[in-house]
Amino acid sequence: MAGPCAVESEKQLMETAKAVKELGAAVVRGGAFKPRTSPFSFQGLERDALKMLAKVKSDLGIPVITEVVDIQNIGLIAKHADILQVGARNMQNFALLKELSKLRHPILLKRGLSATVTEWLTAADYLLAEGNRRIILCERGIRTFEDSIRFSVDISSIAVVKHFSHLPIIVDPSHAAGHFAYVPSIAKAAIAAGADGLLIEVHPNPEEALIDGLQSLNIPNFERLMAELRPIAEAVGRYI
Amino acid sequence: MAGPCAVESEKQLMETAKAVKELGAAVVRGGAFKPRTSPFSFQGLERDALKMLAKVKSDLGIPVITEVVDIQNIGLIAKHADILQVGARNMQNFALLKELSKLRHPILLKRGLSATVTEWLTAADYLLAEGNRRIILCERGIRTFEDSIRFSVDISSIAVVKHFSHLPIIVDPSHAAGHFAYVPSIAKAAIAAGADGLLIEVHPNPEEALIDGLQSLNIPNFERLMAELRPIAEAVGRYI
Amino acid sequence: MAGPCAVESEKQLMETAKAVKELGAAVVRGGAFKPRTSPFSFQGLERDALKMLAKVKSDLGIPVITEVVDIQNIGLIAKHADILQVGARNMQNFALLKELSKLRHPILLKRGLSATVTEWLTAADYLLAEGNRRIILCERGIRTFEDSIRFSVDISSIAVVKHFSHLPIIVDPSHAAGHFAYVPSIAKAAIAAGADGLLIEVHPNPEEALIDGLQSLNIPNFERLMAELRPIAEAVGRYI
Amino acid sequence: MAGPCAVESEKQLMETAKAVKELGAAVVRGGAFKPRTSPFSFQGLERDALKMLAKVKSDLGIPVITEVVDIQNIGLIAKHADILQVGARNMQNFALLKELSKLRHPILLKRGLSATVTEWLTAADYLLAEGNRRIILCERGIRTFEDSIRFSVDISSIAVVKHFSHLPIIVDPSHAAGHFAYVPSIAKAAIAAGADGLLIEVHPNPEEALIDGLQSLNIPNFERLMAELRPIAEAVGRYI
Repeated sequence: MAGPCAVESEKQLMETAKAVKELGAAVVRGGAFKPRTSPFSFQGLERDALKMLAKVKSDLGIPVITEVVDIQNIGLIAKHADILQVGARNMQNFALLKELSKLRHPILLKRGLSATVTEWLTAADYLLAEGNRRIILCERGIRTFEDSIRFSVDISSIAVVKHFSHLPIIVDPSHAAGHFAYVPSIAKAAIAAGADGLLIEVHPNPEEALIDGLQSLNIPNFERLMAELRPIAEAVGRYI
Repeated sequence: MAGPCAVESEKQLMETAKAVKELGAAVVRGGAFKPRTSPFSFQGLERDALKMLAKVKSDLGIPVITEVVDIQNIGLIAKHADILQVGARNMQNFALLKELSKLRHPILLKRGLSATVTEWLTAADYLLAEGNRRIILCERGIRTFEDSIRFSVDISSIAVVKHFSHLPIIVDPSHAAGHFAYVPSIAKAAIAAGADGLLIEVHPNPEEALIDGLQSLNIPNFERLMAELRPIAEAVGRYI
Repeated sequence: MAGPCAVESEKQLMETAKAVKELGAAVVRGGAFKPRTSPFSFQGLERDALKMLAKVKSDLGIPVITEVVDIQNIGLIAKHADILQVGARNMQNFALLKELSKLRHPILLKRGLSATVTEWLTAADYLLAEGNRRIILCERGIRTFEDSIRFSVDISSIAVVKHFSHLPIIVDPSHAAGHFAYVPSIAKAAIAAGADGLLIEVHPNPEEALIDGLQSLNIPNFERLMAELRPIAEAVGRYI
Repeated sequence: MAGPCAVESEKQLMETAKAVKELGAAVVRGGAFKPRTSPFSFQGLERDALKMLAKVKSDLGIPVITEVVDIQNIGLIAKHADILQVGARNMQNFALLKELSKLRHPILLKRGLSATVTEWLTAADYLLAEGNRRIILCERGIRTFEDSIRFSVDISSIAVVKHFSHLPIIVDPSHAAGHFAYVPSIAKAAIAAGADGLLIEVHPNPEEALIDGLQSLNIPNFERLMAELRPIAEAVGRYI
């Protein structure tokens, strides 16, 4: 899965989507509603972004994923997107999880930034409770004392999740690294450790991105990473 | 502020409320909607509990506080309770905060279990955004590697919050300690450090509590603590 | 216990020692050997500082404490100082602890910056192993994700240590806070929580200190803090 | 690098050494002096173990690595071992580092369990200070709140170290995982992320090991892991 952190314009989204699809991405990501730490930060294009995602989906024939941040917009987002993402800050927003459990869309459940693996799997139980079985876990780094990166990817969580659960688990190296230079190393580690996929931020012009440009790969860097990932995936019996 | 973790019955709530009011508590707490880590745990008495809280309020003439866990029930809870509590897991549930910002009820904003003080104060900005200025911060312990208690009360957060903000800050020693034996020491530290109040779990029969009995003080222990807190409060120029 | 982080000159040490003794400190602290994170930082006056500490001891008749950082200098330091301090980074330097266990001097064992209370008490077992029973534990803050201060004082460690051990425990608010403005609040909390003492950095001219000036109280601030601590100590049945 | 956590007998060590050498290990590890959290735990065979390591070295012609825990034994260990290891608890034992800096043996510097990458590289400066340039860094997991494993391997530290330093970095998945089942996933991730080697605990009969048996691979599991690592190493342009 790859795409921009936030949908900024139809041109930006379509350009990125075409590129990542061609380079092997199976799903296009793009934030419409952005849960920002501060209320004074850019909050996303919301409905307009959903329409752009729907257009990508129909024009390119590739599934799209976007984040759902409140119960009110579940119906709206479910209409436009194929996969609904629950962000780290909402991992234990149980009211939201209960509502999503009624859908049949796949749900991507990001790990809370200080959630144990046990709490994460227990939160997934809320999604399972009403019968939704299409859950994808996403390791996105945990909060530690280390300050050279934003979050520390808990690489062992992949083995632990595989040990205790049958749910697929993917890794988001972009938010964790906070800097594009560290993304390839973490991405390769995730695939070698047995992750079932990656969620990577790609932006055609990272230096002009409205959010998190520094952690986004540009298209040539994404292309190089995909080329480097292929032999690792093969080495662990997978393919991209 | 004192009272049971969860409202279990009218008798349990009224008995506790009477006792803590008589011993000097200014507000009665009681959980109606309980956000539990697992969907298979007791989730609270919900609407019935709200009615019992309203009865305590009218019978004893003491304000009541309870937690709000989703947007749908804000109106219902605001009708019955004086203060609305946002739990640690919802500190960055921005959709919820935006709705609460439209109320004029005081909001108790618990610190997220791995939120920095800066993120906590920035979350409070969401409550301030629509004009609600009656915000109370509540330090409830942060997640660390220490395993002899559930959460480590960040005692320095009191000085830091006072340094950067004018918002009142109280401390919840019960959830953090996880064991009633540690509650008095932390409660006394909080008052000496300059906290503006405490949120303490009290249960008439902790060993029979449906949730978190081990961390609840019984009435005699609460009475002893209140007696011990008074001279410390006076020593820092406060009173109880 | 109070005094400068590092001994810088006889004048600085004597001036501070006289002041803190007069204001009620029972022990004078002063670093001779400084274990610095980088080899390029000031490492302390070493032997010269020990002589100055010995002079303070004989001139003012007050015990002195200083840190021991390696086995070679134990004898030298034990000759000049009354209490030997083991720093946080050496809490699990078991070779050092074993040697100190042979002394009869009191040993101040600082908690490692990521040591659990259990590991800390187990490290104290190394000091007890050869018969030294005069151990003082010192909580100096643990490493957490919180970045508004240097280390988070684990205030609950006081109650936990008192629960599992008979060893006295004191608190060092200065290193943890990293800023003098936060020291009083944490110091008062520690006394209220039941700590048996404090270790406070005092410098006659903090802005000119070679190490950690920002976290040191000047003499007037130390005087004010001592005045504020007295009623809190009385409130918990202690005196200063 | 592979071998038992602690040398237990000549038979155990020789049997393991032969097996891991044949399977591709370049260095044999074996603990002689064991720094244990409690003084009541098995502390290692000390001098006897050193002799057994020297015998492995001469009989099999493979370099050996063992841990140095105090200054007194540096000379003794340097005589028998090829590489000297500084354990996580001694990463900031600056007195020890200064002495090791005078040697010309390679030093393996394990990361402290709560050390930032910056502190780790700064500790390496102590080894460089007197001219020893043969330093190998070893990521062995950091302390976090996650409790399903012992320590969380900070996989991003590999990219960060490569970004700021020219020192080689290897990974110890065994101590971190605490359970052999998680070792292969972490080991593969480390190689894919760009680590220059691995330090793996292997024991011929893990269930009878005196220390840390649960985290040790037996010979067949080590053989399987080596086979799985080869294609990953090739995929990142390395070989084993």
